[in-house]
Amino acid sequence: MSFQNILYSVDDGIATITLNRPDKLNAVSEAMIDEIIAALDCADADDDVRVVVVRANGRLFCAGADLSQGAGTFDYGSHAPVGPSSPVRPDGSIDYSHEKVRDGAGRLTLRLYRSLKPVIGALHGAAVGVGVTMTLAMDARFAADDTRFGLVFTRRGIVPEAASTWFLQRIVGLDRALDWCLTGRMVSAGEALEAGLVRSLHPAAELLPAAYAYAREIADYTAPVSVALTRQMLWQMAGARHPMEAHRLDSRGVYARGRSDDAREGVASFLEKRPPAFTDRVSRDMPDYFPWWEDPDYS
Amino acid sequence: MSFQNILYSVDDGIATITLNRPDKLNAVSEAMIDEIIAALDCADADDDVRVVVVRANGRLFCAGADLSQGAGTFDYGSHAPVGPSSPVRPDGSIDYSHEKVRDGAGRLTLRLYRSLKPVIGALHGAAVGVGVTMTLAMDARFAADDTRFGLVFTRRGIVPEAASTWFLQRIVGLDRALDWCLTGRMVSAGEALEAGLVRSLHPAAELLPAAYAYAREIADYTAPVSVALTRQMLWQMAGARHPMEAHRLDSRGVYARGRSDDAREGVASFLEKRPPAFTDRVSRDMPDYFPWWEDPDYS
Amino acid sequence: MSFQNILYSVDDGIATITLNRPDKLNAVSEAMIDEIIAALDCADADDDVRVVVVRANGRLFCAGADLSQGAGTFDYGSHAPVGPSSPVRPDGSIDYSHEKVRDGAGRLTLRLYRSLKPVIGALHGAAVGVGVTMTLAMDARFAADDTRFGLVFTRRGIVPEAASTWFLQRIVGLDRALDWCLTGRMVSAGEALEAGLVRSLHPAAELLPAAYAYAREIADYTAPVSVALTRQMLWQMAGARHPMEAHRLDSRGVYARGRSDDAREGVASFLEKRPPAFTDRVSRDMPDYFPWWEDPDYS
Repeated sequence: MSFQNILYSVDDGIATITLNRPDKLNAVSEAMIDEIIAALDCADADDDVRVVVVRANGRLFCAGADLSQGAGTFDYGSHAPVGPSSPVRPDGSIDYSHEKVRDGAGRLTLRLYRSLKPVIGALHGAAVGVGVTMTLAMDARFAADDTRFGLVFTRRGIVPEAASTWFLQRIVGLDRALDWCLTGRMVSAGEALEAGLVRSLHPAAELLPAAYAYAREIADYTAPVSVALTRQMLWQMAGARHPMEAHRLDSRGVYARGRSDDAREGVASFLEKRPPAFTDRVSRDMPDYFPWWEDPDYS
Repeated sequence: MSFQNILYSVDDGIATITLNRPDKLNAVSEAMIDEIIAALDCADADDDVRVVVVRANGRLFCAGADLSQGAGTFDYGSHAPVGPSSPVRPDGSIDYSHEKVRDGAGRLTLRLYRSLKPVIGALHGAAVGVGVTMTLAMDARFAADDTRFGLVFTRRGIVPEAASTWFLQRIVGLDRALDWCLTGRMVSAGEALEAGLVRSLHPAAELLPAAYAYAREIADYTAPVSVALTRQMLWQMAGARHPMEAHRLDSRGVYARGRSDDAREGVASFLEKRPPAFTDRVSRDMPDYFPWWEDPDYS
Repeated sequence: MSFQNILYSVDDGIATITLNRPDKLNAVSEAMIDEIIAALDCADADDDVRVVVVRANGRLFCAGADLSQGAGTFDYGSHAPVGPSSPVRPDGSIDYSHEKVRDGAGRLTLRLYRSLKPVIGALHGAAVGVGVTMTLAMDARFAADDTRFGLVFTRRGIVPEAASTWFLQRIVGLDRALDWCLTGRMVSAGEALEAGLVRSLHPAAELLPAAYAYAREIADYTAPVSVALTRQMLWQMAGARHPMEAHRLDSRGVYARGRSDDAREGVASFLEKRPPAFTDRVSRDMPDYFPWWEDPDYS
C-alpha cells in the first residue's frame, strides 16, 4: 500500500507505522487518520504481523491538530463539503444525531480498541491534543525522556476528543484525568511516568530499541490467537458491569483454546524448557464464538 | 444568600464554601448539606464563578456526623417526622422503596457529580466519615500535612454512605477502597497522598494558597464552557460500558465547540502567545445537546 | 467437614483455608476448587468466622494447573465425561451456549466475589496461572519477599481465566493488566507490590503473622454485618454505571443499620473510648433488603 502521511513496513513479525509529516510536526489530518486505520487493517489481516509499533519522524511525535488554518481550525462544520453530507443544516444548526458529526480521532481510537494485534506507541518530543489522545487505546506507551504531553482542550476552547474521557481515566485514574483535562496544562515525562501514562522513559536514542524489545517479547514467546483474544477480553472488560461477563468469555476461551494445537505446544514447550513454536494463525484459527460482541451503533 | 452552617463568598472568579460550625468540629447535619447544595446551585448559576473551593473553619475540616445525640445518632428513622413522610412504617419496618430513605450525604455527592464548575477541597486536621466521603465527588483534594482520614463506618456498626463505595475506588483503586472501608481504620496524610486520595500535602499555612493557586490556573487559562463539558464527560465516563459512549459525546462536542468564539480565541491566543480571553458563558452558551443524559430515578 | 485437597480450620474468629497438595505444588484441580468453595460456604454460614485467610502448604502457593497430563492438560473437552454432560458434540464442535463450558477457576472467583466474609491471601514462592487469578477476588493479598507471579496464559497457547480480565485491571489498572497478560511474563514480588497486586511484602517467616494481624484488625474492631454489606457494596460498585446505584444501596443501609444494636454500640464504644462489642450476626441480622441483586445467569 502507498501512503502519503505515514510509512508502513513489516519486519520480523513487527509492523511499524511512522507518522511522516515532520515538516508539519506530524499534525493530524483526516487523511492521516484514514491512513493509520488502513495500516491497522493491514496489520490485522497479516499473520506475519504479531505486534504494531507506532512512532514518528521528525522533531516530535505529534503536535496535535494542524493550526495552519488559524482561528477557524476547529470549525469542522465549515470545512465539511457543502450538501447532504454536511452536518451543518441550512439554518446553521448542527445535525448531531447523524453520523456526519463523527470525530476523526475517535474513529481511530475505536479502531485501535478493536485491534487484533497489540499496538505500542514510541513517543518523543511532544504529544499534544490528538497527539496524545490517539495513543490512549494503544496497549503500551514508551517515551523519550524529554517528551511533553498536553490534553490542552480546555485552553483551546474545545473539548477532549478521541473518546479520551473514557480511555484516559482507565489508564491514569480518574483524579489524574480530571487534573490534566480540566487544567489543560502541559505534563512532563516524569509526571506521565509516575501516573502510568507511559510504561518507561528512555534517552532519545534508546527509545525505539526499548519499544521493539518489548514487541519482540510478545512476538517471540506468545501465541497469536491467545494474544488477540486476551487483548479483546481486557479492553472489553474495562467497562463491564459484572465479572460474570468475563466468566462467560473465558469459559468459552478455556475450552476453545485448551484443545488447540497451540495449547499442546504451549505445555509441551514449557515442560521441555524450550521456546514455543505456535502454529495457529489469527486469520484462520480464531474460535468460532469470535467475535462475541456487537459493536454499538454510532448514532 | 444567608447561611447558618456555612459561609459562601465569591472573589475574582473563585467561590469559597466554608464549613462553619467550628464548635461542632463541622459535624454535618441535614441543614448543612442543604446549604452546601444551595451554594453549589449559586456557583453553577453565576458566570463569575469559575471554580469552587470547599474549606472549613476551626480545628479540623469535618469530624463527620454529630455524635452529640449519643448512641441513637444514626437512628434516622426515629428522627424523621411522624407521619406520611417517615420511612418507618407503623409496624416498625422501613419502607426502602421510597424516596424517604435517602442518605443526605449521597444527595450532596450526587449534586457535586453534576456540578458545572470544578470543585476543589482544602482539608486540614481530620476528615472522618461523611467528612471525607463528601469530598469524593470533588475534582481535587488538597490537604494539610497533619490531616487524618477515616472511613470508619464498619467500626460504628453502620455502612459507607454518600455513594462512597462507587466514588472512592475510582479515585484510589479497588484494593485501597477495600482496605480502608473494611478495616475502618484511620489513614494518615502520607498514605492518602500515596493512594491518590489527595493531590498534594502542605504545611497548614500553605494549604489554602495551594488550593487557590490551582483554582487560579483553571480560572485564568481555560474556557468555562469547555470546562463544564469536560467535567461532565469525565465523571460520566467513569462508569461507562464502552468508549463509543465517549465518542458520541465528544463528536458532538468537537463540532459544537469547534465553531464557537472560544475555539477561535483559543487558537488565536495560542498562536499569538498571549493568555486567552474567552467570552462564552455557561449560563448562555452550553451546546444545544446539553444536558445529554437523563438522571436515573432515585427509586 | 473432611477435605482431600485443602485444610480448613477456625481459630479465634479467623478461618484458614490451606491449599494442601504440596507434592503437586498445590496444582489446582476441579476437586480442589469444589473444596475451596465448600470451605467458603462454611465460613459464610459460621458466625464465629469473621475473616478468611487462604494460604498454602509446601514450597510455593500454587503452580497453577496440574501439567502432569502433559500436552493435553488444557483439553478439558476430552476430559469431560462422555454423554449429555459433555460440552463436546458428536461432531467434535463445542457447545458454548451451555453451562457445560464453565471455567472452574471462574466458579471460584465468582464465589469469592459474593463472600460475606473478607478473604485474605497469604502467598509465598510462586503464584502462577490459576494460582494467581484465583486470588484476584480476594480482599487483600500479602506475599513473601520471594514470591513470583505469572499470568502466563498467552505463553501456553490458552487465555486468561477465572474472570481475571475483569478482576485484574480493577486492582492493578488497565495498563499493568495489558502488560502482564499480553506478554505472559513472570512478575517479581517488587513489581507486584508497586502495581498494588499485593498489599505488602514480608520475609517468609513473617508472612502469616502479617496476614493474621491484618485479619485480627477486622475481627476485633468491626461489626460483622457492616463488613458483609460493605464488602458487597464495594465489589458490586466496581462495575456500576452510575453513583446513583451506590446511593440507592447506601440509603437503605444507612437506615437499616443506623437503627441497629451495632450502630448504638459503635457510637457508644467510640464515645466511651473502649473497644466495641458488636452483637449483630450475619446469620440473623442482615437487613431485609439483602441480597439486593439478582445474579446474572451464566448462559
